[in-house]
Amino acid sequence: MLEGLVQNDHPLTVGMILRRMRTVNGDSEVVTLRAPGQLDRATYREVGDRCDLLADALSKLGVGEGDRVGTFMWNNQEHLEAYYAIPAMGAVLHTLNLRLFPEQLVYIVNHAKDKVIIVNDSVIPLLAPHTDKFETVEKYIVVGDGDSSALPQDKVIKYEDLLASAEPGFQYPDIDDRSASGLCYTSGTTGDPKGVLYSNRSTFLHAIASGMTDSLGVSGADIVMPVVPMFHAQAWGLAYAAPLVGANLVMPDKFLQGEPLAKLIEGEKVTVAGAVPTLWMDLLRYADENKPDLSSLRCVPCGGAAVPKSLMEAFQERHGVLIVQAWGMTETSPLGAVARPPRGVSEEESWAYRTTAGRVAPGVEARITDDEGKEVAWDGESTGELEVRGPWIASAYYETDAPEKFHDGWLRTGDVAAINPQGYIRITDRAKDVIKSGGEWISSVDLENELMSHPAVREAAVIAKPDERYTERPLACVVLDEGKEVQAGELASFLLDRVAKWWIPDEYAFIEEVPKTSVGKFDKKVLRARLEDGELTDRQTVEKIGA
Amino acid sequence: MLEGLVQNDHPLTVGMILRRMRTVNGDSEVVTLRAPGQLDRATYREVGDRCDLLADALSKLGVGEGDRVGTFMWNNQEHLEAYYAIPAMGAVLHTLNLRLFPEQLVYIVNHAKDKVIIVNDSVIPLLAPHTDKFETVEKYIVVGDGDSSALPQDKVIKYEDLLASAEPGFQYPDIDDRSASGLCYTSGTTGDPKGVLYSNRSTFLHAIASGMTDSLGVSGADIVMPVVPMFHAQAWGLAYAAPLVGANLVMPDKFLQGEPLAKLIEGEKVTVAGAVPTLWMDLLRYADENKPDLSSLRCVPCGGAAVPKSLMEAFQERHGVLIVQAWGMTETSPLGAVARPPRGVSEEESWAYRTTAGRVAPGVEARITDDEGKEVAWDGESTGELEVRGPWIASAYYETDAPEKFHDGWLRTGDVAAINPQGYIRITDRAKDVIKSGGEWISSVDLENELMSHPAVREAAVIAKPDERYTERPLACVVLDEGKEVQAGELASFLLDRVAKWWIPDEYAFIEEVPKTSVGKFDKKVLRARLEDGELTDRQTVEKIGA
Repeated sequence: MLEGLVQNDHPLTVGMILRRMRTVNGDSEVVTLRAPGQLDRATYREVGDRCDLLADALSKLGVGEGDRVGTFMWNNQEHLEAYYAIPAMGAVLHTLNLRLFPEQLVYIVNHAKDKVIIVNDSVIPLLAPHTDKFETVEKYIVVGDGDSSALPQDKVIKYEDLLASAEPGFQYPDIDDRSASGLCYTSGTTGDPKGVLYSNRSTFLHAIASGMTDSLGVSGADIVMPVVPMFHAQAWGLAYAAPLVGANLVMPDKFLQGEPLAKLIEGEKVTVAGAVPTLWMDLLRYADENKPDLSSLRCVPCGGAAVPKSLMEAFQERHGVLIVQAWGMTETSPLGAVARPPRGVSEEESWAYRTTAGRVAPGVEARITDDEGKEVAWDGESTGELEVRGPWIASAYYETDAPEKFHDGWLRTGDVAAINPQGYIRITDRAKDVIKSGGEWISSVDLENELMSHPAVREAAVIAKPDERYTERPLACVVLDEGKEVQAGELASFLLDRVAKWWIPDEYAFIEEVPKTSVGKFDKKVLRARLEDGELTDRQTVEKIGA
Repeated sequence: MLEGLVQNDHPLTVGMILRRMRTVNGDSEVVTLRAPGQLDRATYREVGDRCDLLADALSKLGVGEGDRVGTFMWNNQEHLEAYYAIPAMGAVLHTLNLRLFPEQLVYIVNHAKDKVIIVNDSVIPLLAPHTDKFETVEKYIVVGDGDSSALPQDKVIKYEDLLASAEPGFQYPDIDDRSASGLCYTSGTTGDPKGVLYSNRSTFLHAIASGMTDSLGVSGADIVMPVVPMFHAQAWGLAYAAPLVGANLVMPDKFLQGEPLAKLIEGEKVTVAGAVPTLWMDLLRYADENKPDLSSLRCVPCGGAAVPKSLMEAFQERHGVLIVQAWGMTETSPLGAVARPPRGVSEEESWAYRTTAGRVAPGVEARITDDEGKEVAWDGESTGELEVRGPWIASAYYETDAPEKFHDGWLRTGDVAAINPQGYIRITDRAKDVIKSGGEWISSVDLENELMSHPAVREAAVIAKPDERYTERPLACVVLDEGKEVQAGELASFLLDRVAKWWIPDEYAFIEEVPKTSVGKFDKKVLRARLEDGELTDRQTVEKIGA
């Protein structure tokens, strides 16, 4: 091999983005909504200096190369500081999902062996009850002045005290760009949550690609509001892309409702904002009633679940906002496909492209395989499992053996799809047996197992029911033991301390038997068809407990 | 080190761009101007199929991994095919500059050990006289039906015959992305030309970065016309960026004059076109007279030499065309800086940014060092040598030892510059002793040596003289031996078979002595100052021989 003589060994690192953030883009800023109407501002130059302090402090706490530092935080400036200081010092940023069911949270913290957890005071009540089960956590760093008495007091330090005690000018080590920079668990499938371990190289490449005009097109002229939580696939990479190009960041912290978001967009003149459809429905409702000026928004990538065309139309017609559907998953960093229409199509024709999951993004390769693992044609008709590969696509899970999720170097997405000749992906079904509610996954198999542990339940099959607000909600189809009579409310109560509140089905269909496939497996396709045809008539609804 | 579990080993290759070009972007096309008014079109899908044929044919000619294949070609579809087939098969695309002085051409072909040269029939007269001095070339593949009798007949094959004899479905090997993909020599400094050996990784990363909104922002919606020759720093990467994102390519072949270019822009609705200022001056002259509709042009990156503000203003005011200054060199792939104004400045303020060499591009790191090699502040005032590094910046020259060009892993650009706090580079002087004429380098030292070999010349110092059309032209300051009398015309004739025609100075100043520095070196700063102050009065002009 004749090796090229460019700087092939120039490492593509988060540290490189940090250097750019504080120099070329040092005047740009991050704005955090602390309370309704109360905004904090800091320039990237200031953020860079605080990253040095955080890195120095963490290093003095014993955090070294490869160590995991958990964050249990909303979207705010301190979380951004963690996003940079931790990978730049060679440690691993482990973003913990605030919406996890307690058992999953405990599993994940222990599985990742988090050494330190940085936590927003507002979510201490979600974390504190479980700290006695965390096996490796040595310190809790609390952001904010709220009550932290519920945390183990010998392990608590305040974030600002920590920074105040640190020294400026931290010397970051040289980092191999293949080393891990971030960790994010996905509970997308059955079984234990699985960790996706991002590398410096993948994070940098994903940030560069997010600045491409054809993907998200984030540029120095943008004001970017990551509404998507920073614990979701690293805020879709926006927290790295924006500082790389010099876009401002607007952080809504925990205020993810229509009103505060609309006010932030209007007040800060946000140009790019990413979120799941559920949230945009909230915002639309608020905007329709209150008519805020949202016209600064030039592009709203929306993903995590299929985006209803009606939502896109409503935003475009009534508020001049362009919603762009995108497809990805935690395993894909997440940029996989973006639904921009091809050159030269009319506004009317464009909908045929805009309502797909998107066109395969530059840097990502996709294929569809049939049941025998053979590639099928890109004819827009032939379907099979969507498989992807590329420099920011996972090739394994962190310390979890899951060979069934990979195929000759390709990630099996679990989505059933067709690809048209121009590379637009149309998802037709989900191979994975999960329900997507409000951008989060619900495992139907887990729900079924819990339901079937009820003494009166013989069989239970949970399927997704389309839901305007949450995209999907679980519908439990239950077969009772002969002669038994149980009400939906009892089943919901039964689930209450067994699964996350928002997993609990609010609708139950009582059926005589779960249809089976030839090999005796539940045939949910038949159940879904019955639901569609209005045949699941014996249904009871309970009040929604949480979603 | 905890290694990330994304596809860190996913190679970033030209082959990956080729796969995308022929699938996702297979409907996009390359248009080549064959003769005035005569356009050839091919889809990227067709180009991909022809790449397979070319790779198969080259492989049957014995071209293997790491072998250099030269191209002596204008910008056209066949050159594009070579751009993809050669690196994808693991060989190295060596783009030969059509404007080289014969001796340089011979040196470069032999130094690179080109095994095969693909040549456009229209430039055979420039190549044929020297083939007897090429030591390693086994085959000449001729594109076009023109007369090729001047080439060694036993080594000549026609391009189309070759493709017709090849088999479809070539199986490309797996390529390590650190392996070389392209080679381009620069004669930017004194001494022998030096080869810049690009890697697959650098070429891919540069293509992705060219799609960033803040750099060139090339997208699938664009029609890109690389007016910059494909033998100049790989056509600024446009021939890789456009197929990656699905932009069409419009290739002007050898028709680089105002009229054919204007007609191409108007006819094909070109949106992005890159070239050196000289060429845009030609186009402006034509456009002012003939008023073609150039309004499809949304962005014209212009580099290779400082872009006069008057040229930018004229295009913007009279033709609605935005010229964006960019800085780079063969060693930087070339994307180094792009002069887009920062967010929020007015049209009037924007000129202060647009007239700089540009803002350091994402992916590139820059610094200014003083005479002792120490970094100086980004205050917009302190000057020193501009140094850059990054994943698409050269770290060495191909088989040429030049440690003086590198500094602790940074490329020394030879430009003297200041950087302001926002990363905008202002080039104040050139450390390298060269003259930039029409986008090409002229070595003043080489010219001096040749002039001083004239029997009547005692000393000669060549400096750059600002030139509206060519940016700079050489001005020879000559000291004659006592009592000798020589006219400028004689000196120009003397140079005629010693240097490239367009190098020959068209102006000569006869002086009494060349000012010297304390160590006895020619002090050209003093000469430049005298020129500026109008003190170099004894001047003779000869008719321009070639430029």
